[in-house]
Amino acid sequence: MGVNHAECRTWERLGSEVLYRGAHVTLHRDRVVQPDGAEGTYERLTIADGARVVAVDDVGWVALVEDAFAPVGRRLLHVPGGGVAAGEDPEAAAARECEEETGWRPGALRPLGVFHPLPSRTSAVTHLYLGTALRPGTVRRDPTEAGMRVCWMPLDEAVRVAGTGAVTEAGTVVALLMAARLLSAGAG
Amino acid sequence: MGVNHAECRTWERLGSEVLYRGAHVTLHRDRVVQPDGAEGTYERLTIADGARVVAVDDVGWVALVEDAFAPVGRRLLHVPGGGVAAGEDPEAAAARECEEETGWRPGALRPLGVFHPLPSRTSAVTHLYLGTALRPGTVRRDPTEAGMRVCWMPLDEAVRVAGTGAVTEAGTVVALLMAARLLSAGAG
Repeated sequence: MGVNHAECRTWERLGSEVLYRGAHVTLHRDRVVQPDGAEGTYERLTIADGARVVAVDDVGWVALVEDAFAPVGRRLLHVPGGGVAAGEDPEAAAARECEEETGWRPGALRPLGVFHPLPSRTSAVTHLYLGTALRPGTVRRDPTEAGMRVCWMPLDEAVRVAGTGAVTEAGTVVALLMAARLLSAGAG
Repeated sequence: MGVNHAECRTWERLGSEVLYRGAHVTLHRDRVVQPDGAEGTYERLTIADGARVVAVDDVGWVALVEDAFAPVGRRLLHVPGGGVAAGEDPEAAAARECEEETGWRPGALRPLGVFHPLPSRTSAVTHLYLGTALRPGTVRRDPTEAGMRVCWMPLDEAVRVAGTGAVTEAGTVVALLMAARLLSAGAG
């Protein structure tokens, strides 16, 4: 019995042109062979990878940060994090963002997982961590982060809120649910 | 005591130009007032909203679909779903995608939540549903979905797999974790 090659089909990239190279987004149009064998084109984005951290203090409270997201037009609650700089280690980015946004630097980071926010348009991934052993550090915010607010709440409360729709940022929802599962598994 | 306006700061859009209008992606450069009051520019994308459904059969097994994602360059496992067409109701899109991809149409859909896959770049949201009362329907796949494979597994197994990093598509991870929480709360 042979291999069923239909079950391994993927896209083949024959070539690529840059439609627009922006400061934060590059838009490509690839010439591709589709899974059915036909040739076509595909619009793809290059954006920075992300890193987010569920920072838990000694009594099990987590840091949530609220600031405004320009495309959405309002403020969103999220766990600390942001873009991974070119050449930067994702774990270092997570620790840096946590300190810059909350003023607390995790002494220990444990990987929670990696996910694709929008795999139909970009190969970018977001790296998620559980941060513990928090030590006081230095808040350093971009001008675009003026008005950022930090609040702390018990992890189980944050997870409950994430489930109500009050928290909608993808990395935050995934990270909180994964942190809760990891910590409840460890406690059980 | 007055309101602390710093705690309400957001971005203001003064104007917008289209840098590129593609078939599936439109790239905008907005002229904005940043949260700190300075003027600047912001690169923003318009893409279709999404809809995904955790389709659970009578014995608690869920449908997972595997197919190739062009930007990622490999096949990913995900719950059925896709783009919401212009003017389409997200719930109708979820039911339609479920039937097209798996051949089973949910007779009942229950909202699990809405999330922002990439709120730093787009206001697009993904609507998540729990689908039950599955009835046989008709598989209808795009040419780009050739080689799509459906597999069924117990919900708790799918949730476990999602937590290991084997499932990385954002909507799938969020939807599986939320479905598991909803169903375990209902059972408790």
